[in-house]
Amino acid sequence: MNWNSEIEAALERVSPHVLKTPVFQSDAFGRLLEFKLEHMQHTGSFKARGAFNTLLQTDVPKAGIVAASGGNHGAAVAFAAQALGHRATIFVPEMAGASKIALIRDTGADLRVVAGAYSDALDQALRFEAETGAMQVHAYDATPTVTGQGTCFAEWETQGLEADTVLIAVGGGGLVAGALAWLGERRKVVAVEPETSCALHAALAAGRPVDVEVSGIAANALGAKRIGSICFDLATRADVSSITVSDDSIANAQALLWKKHRILVEPAGATALAALLQGAYVPEPDEKVAVLVCGGNIAPDPFL
Amino acid sequence: MNWNSEIEAALERVSPHVLKTPVFQSDAFGRLLEFKLEHMQHTGSFKARGAFNTLLQTDVPKAGIVAASGGNHGAAVAFAAQALGHRATIFVPEMAGASKIALIRDTGADLRVVAGAYSDALDQALRFEAETGAMQVHAYDATPTVTGQGTCFAEWETQGLEADTVLIAVGGGGLVAGALAWLGERRKVVAVEPETSCALHAALAAGRPVDVEVSGIAANALGAKRIGSICFDLATRADVSSITVSDDSIANAQALLWKKHRILVEPAGATALAALLQGAYVPEPDEKVAVLVCGGNIAPDPFL
Repeated sequence: MNWNSEIEAALERVSPHVLKTPVFQSDAFGRLLEFKLEHMQHTGSFKARGAFNTLLQTDVPKAGIVAASGGNHGAAVAFAAQALGHRATIFVPEMAGASKIALIRDTGADLRVVAGAYSDALDQALRFEAETGAMQVHAYDATPTVTGQGTCFAEWETQGLEADTVLIAVGGGGLVAGALAWLGERRKVVAVEPETSCALHAALAAGRPVDVEVSGIAANALGAKRIGSICFDLATRADVSSITVSDDSIANAQALLWKKHRILVEPAGATALAALLQGAYVPEPDEKVAVLVCGGNIAPDPFL
Repeated sequence: MNWNSEIEAALERVSPHVLKTPVFQSDAFGRLLEFKLEHMQHTGSFKARGAFNTLLQTDVPKAGIVAASGGNHGAAVAFAAQALGHRATIFVPEMAGASKIALIRDTGADLRVVAGAYSDALDQALRFEAETGAMQVHAYDATPTVTGQGTCFAEWETQGLEADTVLIAVGGGGLVAGALAWLGERRKVVAVEPETSCALHAALAAGRPVDVEVSGIAANALGAKRIGSICFDLATRADVSSITVSDDSIANAQALLWKKHRILVEPAGATALAALLQGAYVPEPDEKVAVLVCGGNIAPDPFL
């Protein structure tokens, strides 16, 4: 698999449909940091990239598209489906919360709220796929999803990314896989997970993807039970730095992003920064560091 | 007065101290718009530019600095004073609200909360200046303030501003004066005020600055009783477009900035966009339009 050419092609494919999200530098957190504000993307997270990339390179069946999601992926798939004229059926667990559920409903998708956790929504989405022939868009463990998320980093380099090291929050691993696929040979990638939801960390310790318990304040975005196999393969080959942070650190990073820059994000969106603020990742004095802000769908929504 | 060279010098002076705030393009509001996200500036508004520019070009007396403010200017002056090692005494009206008052208190400034409106805070700040010899930093009607705010537009051009027309919210007129001083001969400037606080609009109608009543949702940021004379002079020479918008339009623009891009701002920060969404300013089909997002200090503060 030539990830570079796949991601270059994906960037060309999705660029007319996704926002080139802004970048900026700040010295408000103790050292100069580069940020990319991907929470300003359509539907409030990077997930729009993988969704558009998937739908644009596939013949979508008449039964349309189906996805299971903690919220952000479902909203992105529903948004992309609507923009491209496809039917979408989205299964979300109740724990996605009112603001993410409203985001999906607003796209006009057929929304199915499922009791339980993400894995229950996935079970039902798989059954729906088998019964109807709808096309499944996986939230993180599919090549078109990973290459789509990789466009975030290809785009960032066109915007002048200088960092030696990029910190990225990890749930199921689609985003960090995209980062490893694009940046992995040229820059250091630090994968940051909540202590309470750390599927990649656990997989690297075990030497293979394993099931983990998920909980904590970022669980509805980062709470994957098992890391994606594409992510795991890339992470073991690239010797990624895997870091975990406490929920308190995430909440603190969330408050400081607001206080310093009026950036209001969900806990997942502040998780990468938390690794620096908590001292879980300590850069060298001359190391240039960048932080991806990945999602903004905070609950409660201030306008709901 | 050679505004261009003054603003160029100001940009060089303030750049080490203020953030180069991000810019981005969005098609989420019916046409392609350029945005500059100045609400991400230190203390949540463009006011840091004028504050640093003033303090950096003056010998500050031992009695320090005094300012009166609806909140944003006071926070910026207090922040700049702290950064540069000066004492600051800030007079704010109660209507500034808890979040802006907390922002000022956090800088370590000597904070004086005054009953009444901005004009009452200004009266007390003038008395304090006379009694102590502290240096007054005016919120909008002083040349170093205007040239400082002008750096926002000089910076925007270095970031690739393409627009024919730039929409800017107006309170006392420091920001729009900076825009007119820098952009006025090359691009169209549209000055947007709430119907309930429109000192520039009233002054242009009367042919001279006149006192107006101020109220409405953006009053604690845009509620100047009388437009600054520097702004008025620049506006009459440049033939500025003066537009007013309803409070409902401002609230709608505020909600849509959040919904579309997870940009959470105070009403003043959404006022310029409101002119487009309300149809109060209707661009030509091929007119390239930019919107300055000027302030993010929303009340209540989501983390207070």
